[in-house]
Amino acid sequence: MKSKVYLYDTTLRDGTQGEGISLSVEDKIKIALRLDQFGIDFIEGGWPGSNPKDMAFFERIREIPLQHAKVTAFGSTCRPNVAAAEDDNLQALIASGVQAAAIFGKSWDLHVTDALKTTLEENVRMVADSVAFLKQKGLTTLFLAEHFFDGYKANASYALEVLKAAEEAGADWIVLCDTNGGSLPHEVYEIVRATVGQLRTPLGIHPHNDSGVAVANALAAVQAGAKQVQGTINGIGERCGNVNLVSVVPNLQLKLGYDCVSGEQLQGLTQLSRYVAEIANMTLPNNQPFVGHSAFAHKGGIHVSAVLRDPKTYEHIEPENIGNKRRVLVSELAGQSNLLAKMEELEIDLSLDREKTREIITRIKEREFQGYQYEGAEASLTLMLLEASGKLKNWFTLDSFKILMEKAAIQSITSEAMVKLRVNSESVHTAADGNGPVNALDNAMRKALESYYPCIANMHLADYKVRVLDENGATAAKVRVLIESASNGEKWSTVGVSTNVIEASWEALADSIRYFLWKEGCEEAGHLASAEARVGIVNH
Amino acid sequence: MKSKVYLYDTTLRDGTQGEGISLSVEDKIKIALRLDQFGIDFIEGGWPGSNPKDMAFFERIREIPLQHAKVTAFGSTCRPNVAAAEDDNLQALIASGVQAAAIFGKSWDLHVTDALKTTLEENVRMVADSVAFLKQKGLTTLFLAEHFFDGYKANASYALEVLKAAEEAGADWIVLCDTNGGSLPHEVYEIVRATVGQLRTPLGIHPHNDSGVAVANALAAVQAGAKQVQGTINGIGERCGNVNLVSVVPNLQLKLGYDCVSGEQLQGLTQLSRYVAEIANMTLPNNQPFVGHSAFAHKGGIHVSAVLRDPKTYEHIEPENIGNKRRVLVSELAGQSNLLAKMEELEIDLSLDREKTREIITRIKEREFQGYQYEGAEASLTLMLLEASGKLKNWFTLDSFKILMEKAAIQSITSEAMVKLRVNSESVHTAADGNGPVNALDNAMRKALESYYPCIANMHLADYKVRVLDENGATAAKVRVLIESASNGEKWSTVGVSTNVIEASWEALADSIRYFLWKEGCEEAGHLASAEARVGIVNH
Repeated sequence: MKSKVYLYDTTLRDGTQGEGISLSVEDKIKIALRLDQFGIDFIEGGWPGSNPKDMAFFERIREIPLQHAKVTAFGSTCRPNVAAAEDDNLQALIASGVQAAAIFGKSWDLHVTDALKTTLEENVRMVADSVAFLKQKGLTTLFLAEHFFDGYKANASYALEVLKAAEEAGADWIVLCDTNGGSLPHEVYEIVRATVGQLRTPLGIHPHNDSGVAVANALAAVQAGAKQVQGTINGIGERCGNVNLVSVVPNLQLKLGYDCVSGEQLQGLTQLSRYVAEIANMTLPNNQPFVGHSAFAHKGGIHVSAVLRDPKTYEHIEPENIGNKRRVLVSELAGQSNLLAKMEELEIDLSLDREKTREIITRIKEREFQGYQYEGAEASLTLMLLEASGKLKNWFTLDSFKILMEKAAIQSITSEAMVKLRVNSESVHTAADGNGPVNALDNAMRKALESYYPCIANMHLADYKVRVLDENGATAAKVRVLIESASNGEKWSTVGVSTNVIEASWEALADSIRYFLWKEGCEEAGHLASAEARVGIVNH
Repeated sequence: MKSKVYLYDTTLRDGTQGEGISLSVEDKIKIALRLDQFGIDFIEGGWPGSNPKDMAFFERIREIPLQHAKVTAFGSTCRPNVAAAEDDNLQALIASGVQAAAIFGKSWDLHVTDALKTTLEENVRMVADSVAFLKQKGLTTLFLAEHFFDGYKANASYALEVLKAAEEAGADWIVLCDTNGGSLPHEVYEIVRATVGQLRTPLGIHPHNDSGVAVANALAAVQAGAKQVQGTINGIGERCGNVNLVSVVPNLQLKLGYDCVSGEQLQGLTQLSRYVAEIANMTLPNNQPFVGHSAFAHKGGIHVSAVLRDPKTYEHIEPENIGNKRRVLVSELAGQSNLLAKMEELEIDLSLDREKTREIITRIKEREFQGYQYEGAEASLTLMLLEASGKLKNWFTLDSFKILMEKAAIQSITSEAMVKLRVNSESVHTAADGNGPVNALDNAMRKALESYYPCIANMHLADYKVRVLDENGATAAKVRVLIESASNGEKWSTVGVSTNVIEASWEALADSIRYFLWKEGCEEAGHLASAEARVGIVNH
């Protein structure tokens, strides 16, 4: 029988404290539903009373039946010299209608006297009174001991006295917070182990990543006896973030043998991580442990053939278990077998003969020599493979484009693009402004194509990178443009190379749209649109 | 007496295995100089023999005297059934002219028989023979035991036999590699501790971050007796990256009391991290532990006043110790002395009063908020300081420019620029083609200015980088352009920011020329050129 570790997610509360993170009530509902589906035990939705948005979330989520998770409200103990029953903050927790409440309180003597400006005894009273009040109202109650590790180092007996007061008042959980994120794993292990021995109440851990060791701190606490981990998806949160549950869960479950979620739920980990990133409008680092796009990417000839023969020689876990995929990086596509493995991974079946395969490999090498880089642009690679095998549809071709930029001394620069495309032998001529030349070009292309292929409205550009390939030429040098596009949480990358940054951008833009049309299974416009509709578009 | 831990940086070799990371020889030289300055003990420059770029690096770096670091070449043991002295790979190490070599070899029995396809005995011979050969050639020799932790778990006695063979052959260091990045801190601690007891040779640790615990693994290994940590700046590297030295060093030095670099060098940590990110054209996450822009950012009223009263109540270390800054939402008054120090460093003497200094600081903060970054563009900073103190000459001003780009289906794109400048109240109107819009703009500007300021012929653009600042907006997002210019071996960098890449490039181009004119001590054209000469130029 595996030992259960409970997952407490605070993406919707502590996570939104991260710089640049902002979630609407609708966003929070969407994320909560996915967290529930993944098997999270407690979903902390916000701090009722601190702002209207959080209260609106609790009102909305009450109406939605969840499969498993307990929606939890966050708050603090009552104020000094105020009875818990009279405290606005605790009243707001009750009013939010949740089943569980998590309240933080002081356990570091310095904070009691210097920040709270009250006595050590009064702080103990506030903790006990607040916990007892919430329990009496029928809530599952978690007491979060703020700055516990610093407090324990400064005055262990006082820190423990605070926890015991919460226990005696009936707390269901006591959670040890490393609020500064300054503790190291060996300290967390020792202090949790010492604390577990003093209490009957199950303990949780709430680490922050200021020292870059939050995941290790969570694991150390569990190994020392903690039964709950509080963190966020993708480690978002104030300063350096909360502990990343996306890394904690597979370590606990696949490596240390604890039980967090079902095997099937764990296979949704990568999707969950990418979904939350998408909703929060943040770029997920390719190198994120476990779920990153590069996490199981392999380079190097001998290495690749060994991985394909026996993945465990080079991989610490099987990517399938967490819903990620093994990737073979194309720059090493020396052999036919690698190319075939790549096509299987990209889920394209071209049944190529030996001659054709060799042709394609030669073409990849030529393009890489010119400066294309397909390891970061697998959508462009897919298009090249489709093209080489004659299976690429002709959704549109370029007749010409012109871009005009003008700047007068004190005014901002303006950018205009004119694009002439051919769609099913008809000429479509559009013009658009933009915030810069590439944006203008993108706008003009969309204007030309959206009526033929309305699904284009569902894709957007997510990232744009420019790299100068040969530095000695500076502005006359070759540049590589990488464009990342997204639609419904899925991402793909395309590449263009030219001495002209605009021409390279055009290539990557056109590839990005073509790849999306291929993935969506779009037919060429001639087969779709009626003659009348097309006439309308031509004069658009 | 604090115990010394040696730092081994492999940013230039393992780091460049990271997806999307590509460094030119010039980039590698720049980074190596900064690593040396920071106090890194070993700088791994590449794998000579594996590619011409790495060999070119070793040839260049040989000519440059370093203060402290040993430049190290990476390679592998000799091949099966080949004597070390006959092995091309080891010959290439010697030919690279380095003082130190790091060679990897197998220590996991499964890899010996399945990947290398040789016998366990032959593998031991290869390790011993290769180490002995390098020692005999006078090199400091590090033996890197690949997959050591997996190997130890599978067959501890064989894994140790391999290490002992390296020790007996005279290895100066034995480095335990967690090649898959799959080990957890408690395993690393136990295995390193067991291994230390078996050997006389000092041990190093080489962790990867696939489990999100690489920093903790490095700390655990040092606590168990390892004396060297191998990692990269910002944790770049294959898959999920190598261990991030930027997080390891302050943990070791400020929290665990080990000695890595001097206190003054440690204050350069944030700068080093940002510098490498800039050169590698990667976006540093704001939440990166220790050095991130948000790492010491404080929100919230009570919190902020508490931080200002007593930072240690809310911060795990003092940000000044690593060259980062506390950020609060109130305007920071600090920085006057910093600005004066900076001016001294830039060798500009402006004798500013207190009022003026405060004005300049406000202006820098505003511009940084807009996305300018002066750490990588000190020439632009210098111009701003000169301008703020009224000491910037008016060599030229922009009236307007226009850029036209045209592409027809099968032809290459063409770029033309028209520039109207005002030089000493005369209007100069020129046009030029270029290899792309920025090159055309550069050509047209030079055409306009060269007759007034002939020294411009001696400067050229050396590097051009574009960074998207707000990734969410993609092609409509703000971009930062960094231009590096050079003249007679001296280099300077300038910056421009706009939503339009061309406008940002213009700013950086204009700054680049202005800075050069200032450095050359050029007077404004009106004071130089005769009336006749100017007439000739206007009609140019």
